[in-house]
Amino acid sequence: MGGGSRRGFSGKGRPRQGGPRPHQVHPPREIREQNTNGNGDEKPIPPLEAGNIRIIPLGGVEEIGKNMTAVEFGDDIIVIDCGFQFREADTPGIDYILPNTKYLEDRQDKIRGMFITHGHLDHIGGIPYIIDRIGYPPVYTRKLTAIMVKKRQEEFPNLKPLTIHEVEKEDTIRVGALKVRFFSVTHTIPDAMGIIIETPYGLLVFTGDLKLDHIEGVPTEAEEKEFAYFKDKKVLFLAADSTNVEKAGFSIPESTVKKTMDDIIANTPGRLIIGTFSSQLERLMRMVEQAERVGRKILVEGRSMKVNLEIVKHLGLLKVSDKTFIGPESLESTPDSKILILATGAQGDEFAALMRIAVKTHKYVKIKKSDTIVLSSSIVPGNERSVQKLKDNLSRQGARIIHREQMDVHASGHANRDETFWIHQKINPRFFMPMHGYHYMLRVHADIAKACGRAEEEIIVPDNGAVIEIQDEGQKIVRLKEMAPNSLRLVDGFAIGDMQEVVIRDRTVLAAEGMFVIIATVNPKNGRLRKSPDIISRGFVYLRESQELLQQARIIVKKTIEDTTHGQQPINFDFVKNNVTDAVARFLFEKTNKRPIVIPVVLGV
Amino acid sequence: MGGGSRRGFSGKGRPRQGGPRPHQVHPPREIREQNTNGNGDEKPIPPLEAGNIRIIPLGGVEEIGKNMTAVEFGDDIIVIDCGFQFREADTPGIDYILPNTKYLEDRQDKIRGMFITHGHLDHIGGIPYIIDRIGYPPVYTRKLTAIMVKKRQEEFPNLKPLTIHEVEKEDTIRVGALKVRFFSVTHTIPDAMGIIIETPYGLLVFTGDLKLDHIEGVPTEAEEKEFAYFKDKKVLFLAADSTNVEKAGFSIPESTVKKTMDDIIANTPGRLIIGTFSSQLERLMRMVEQAERVGRKILVEGRSMKVNLEIVKHLGLLKVSDKTFIGPESLESTPDSKILILATGAQGDEFAALMRIAVKTHKYVKIKKSDTIVLSSSIVPGNERSVQKLKDNLSRQGARIIHREQMDVHASGHANRDETFWIHQKINPRFFMPMHGYHYMLRVHADIAKACGRAEEEIIVPDNGAVIEIQDEGQKIVRLKEMAPNSLRLVDGFAIGDMQEVVIRDRTVLAAEGMFVIIATVNPKNGRLRKSPDIISRGFVYLRESQELLQQARIIVKKTIEDTTHGQQPINFDFVKNNVTDAVARFLFEKTNKRPIVIPVVLGV
Repeated sequence: MGGGSRRGFSGKGRPRQGGPRPHQVHPPREIREQNTNGNGDEKPIPPLEAGNIRIIPLGGVEEIGKNMTAVEFGDDIIVIDCGFQFREADTPGIDYILPNTKYLEDRQDKIRGMFITHGHLDHIGGIPYIIDRIGYPPVYTRKLTAIMVKKRQEEFPNLKPLTIHEVEKEDTIRVGALKVRFFSVTHTIPDAMGIIIETPYGLLVFTGDLKLDHIEGVPTEAEEKEFAYFKDKKVLFLAADSTNVEKAGFSIPESTVKKTMDDIIANTPGRLIIGTFSSQLERLMRMVEQAERVGRKILVEGRSMKVNLEIVKHLGLLKVSDKTFIGPESLESTPDSKILILATGAQGDEFAALMRIAVKTHKYVKIKKSDTIVLSSSIVPGNERSVQKLKDNLSRQGARIIHREQMDVHASGHANRDETFWIHQKINPRFFMPMHGYHYMLRVHADIAKACGRAEEEIIVPDNGAVIEIQDEGQKIVRLKEMAPNSLRLVDGFAIGDMQEVVIRDRTVLAAEGMFVIIATVNPKNGRLRKSPDIISRGFVYLRESQELLQQARIIVKKTIEDTTHGQQPINFDFVKNNVTDAVARFLFEKTNKRPIVIPVVLGV
Repeated sequence: MGGGSRRGFSGKGRPRQGGPRPHQVHPPREIREQNTNGNGDEKPIPPLEAGNIRIIPLGGVEEIGKNMTAVEFGDDIIVIDCGFQFREADTPGIDYILPNTKYLEDRQDKIRGMFITHGHLDHIGGIPYIIDRIGYPPVYTRKLTAIMVKKRQEEFPNLKPLTIHEVEKEDTIRVGALKVRFFSVTHTIPDAMGIIIETPYGLLVFTGDLKLDHIEGVPTEAEEKEFAYFKDKKVLFLAADSTNVEKAGFSIPESTVKKTMDDIIANTPGRLIIGTFSSQLERLMRMVEQAERVGRKILVEGRSMKVNLEIVKHLGLLKVSDKTFIGPESLESTPDSKILILATGAQGDEFAALMRIAVKTHKYVKIKKSDTIVLSSSIVPGNERSVQKLKDNLSRQGARIIHREQMDVHASGHANRDETFWIHQKINPRFFMPMHGYHYMLRVHADIAKACGRAEEEIIVPDNGAVIEIQDEGQKIVRLKEMAPNSLRLVDGFAIGDMQEVVIRDRTVLAAEGMFVIIATVNPKNGRLRKSPDIISRGFVYLRESQELLQQARIIVKKTIEDTTHGQQPINFDFVKNNVTDAVARFLFEKTNKRPIVIPVVLGV
């Protein structure tokens, strides 16, 4: 008897099928110069020599997201940020991508603390999935970030409580033999900060995500004051945000967006619906304040936005009357011109408030022709079509749409090229490593560092898992040829772990080609079928209109099995199944030009 | 005995599983105001009354792509364009999306001709899949387009030969009772034209895709001359390109791109690799000419680009020496500064030349640090990540990259807002219908028409399948409440036809959640399992690490079957399978937070 289950488990033995179809774009995985060390065991990483400083970007330097960096000196490791990344087109079905933290897991005893720059998910999202694996180091961050981390942690009741130390900007934290300081940076959420680690050879500076507050390209006094800290300091090393370095000049300052939004909130005649990210917390706070000022009542639609606004109200960062907020039951009784609806979902996410409003599935909010809808957001790459659908569906109902290509209703939280140049000049580091971005962005950032006077050998353009060391008492920076483990780690349902290529590959093929399972019962005595084979197929062809194809497939299965088993005693079921797979796959491809995953189950009964 | 095959065919009866996971963006299908008529049989379309003109956009007004319009007057139907669209994220595995041509199939006898505006796939790509269904009407188009249509048709040897009439811009073609004329438009491929249909009530004008040639916002004399045709004409109706109407001002003229590219081709010190679309035929021709002028030898990489360049050389549209082109064998012997490689794949398509070069799988071309790579293209929405990978992989090898955000190395072929305004003023139609674009773009275009003096009731913003009529001897334009059939038609392997929601839905679920097939053999006499059930799973969890989960699932299957069959005689296999599906699906979701498609096969043997 030869059950088909073993086959189902291993994924081995089936022919290479289901390659991508012509004329379709499939981004291949990144090629890397040094990336043979998927699991960290091919080339063991040498122990850190006394006096050397080791810096390992565990995530965030081959993508935008999953930011996490380890800094190691003597007996101490400090971790900076712990983010995740949302799934990509080439990782279907998974929830999140995590930094690979195996290097830290193997050195838990050395980890003295985790420092979090700000409360966005690409900097805090990995904590619930990772903290348990690295021994619950204490978390250091500012007040708002601390609350956001705690809030998220509540969704994981199985985890131990975190040790969180709230820090102030002026604090100096001693962790192990190291001292850590902070500086304020401008981003899109309060309490964003950069991190400074003091070493005997100079400061290590990590900017986190940042931009500059400025007026027409002249940074404000507040920025000048903040960055003046570095004036007479010896900065040994800088790691800085690369997200927007490809963009020329200075970014649009949030003050410009505030002016635009203030005007829209004050002067829009009908109902005003603003879609934005809940992570744009600074802007949300300013919009709420302006609505109160001009007498608009606010309905907040979207759980994450509600949570974030409650947090800043609770902390006293946002001071508005509770009466400024209304529930959906008050929509009818409030004049349209006095309504502001703040909604999540400006990315066209199917389940977020704005899309539900757009496709008329929202419980309370129906679009009126007199509505004005502001998309106060950029389009996250990959969401272009979703946002198009959102605009199409809203405009179909006659609403007026204002988006960032028409007015300054959105600004990014990351520094453009000229701001980045200014930051480099102020911090003036000896060595530089670009981070927070795709490889090409890091290269562009490296060119900016060169324009600021860095030599080629003073810059390292890293990969995830690159082991970078500052050696010779701060005299040189090198990248070891060894890599820290850097294979992809995924959150897939409840499963957290290394990406299983076979699962992802199967999903990709199933999505494009579908599956075709054959169940045949064979008399083991004579090798003949007990009955016509059963076929189960999904995602392949429309079966109702393919009865003839199925009938022909059944005949091929029967003939293949009986030809193969003819004279065979005992029957070699593996051989039978291989022949069935080959014959059916070939037949289906000839007839349909598709290559479904073919799985034969041949039962000897 | 109760085989599982029936279940596999119908897709009925299984629980609603595998919904999308949280935190992921899924663009829902468009909602439509009037779209109940998926198959055209709910509300029959009334026959066309004598004297009325009927215009039906069959595709291209809810998307960019699959452009096709039917114009009906008296006993005659004229078809304009016959494009396809590439697949979308919500149609996994399919090859192309076609316009729904059922309206034409039902009225084949009236079709007098198909007029093609230009040779891009979103205007000609549907012909091989559609021409057979609508009775092979004669095709009218200009010389280059005619050759491109013929070339494509060669790949479909099963089809009858096309009847193609080459037309000149000055021709007047009589088809049925109608006369058709043409006007030249500026696009990105030679021989692009707009179409003019003469009716007793005035001209119907279809622009096709177009932009204006201009110098700093002043259209050239050639454009002025071309559009002067409309000066004293009575234009009853205009349908015009909406692709770029959201963009302010005038588009970058191709002459600016030419200057930039001429300079790059003349002055780049090392090897030059230019990635662009093979459809950018005008630009390709200008680059080839410049390379010859400055003594660079050209290696063309990419089949479609080779074919297109051969066609324009053959037609005498491109006059260069054959010696300007080299084969890969000459790369080594040619000085780097004398090499230009023209390559397809600037969108990051895995199999196109440029990506193969980037990921080091190209047979001949290896990147050198001294190479300059120009991406002379825009990013088609949805390809952002692929293009990022392309740039990452190229820059990782040290090449210099120039893209459109740095220099004018690309311009779109579609008119911006101010150009569109100019076109409206020149053509000055009585009635207007925006086309070629997503719904929101059409709305923006309608606003431009209003700014040019059209009244609300003189404009129709259509959907695919909208039946628009000009009635009362040209006095009014209306949209009937009936719709022409407009359900999605797909090319999926060799299958061409209506989208089968169940297949696409299964693919989407398989991609995100995977599948879980259970095979149980039951003794029909006592309802007990003959042996432990077999399980086949793909794309769900990593099975090698999930043995315990599988073991528990087997126990649940056995218990569910034996509990259900206990005392049952004969056994109700459908009931058994439903219970197994429910129990296993619930168990798997509890344990993994995933909802694979669960398919039970229960065999009575």
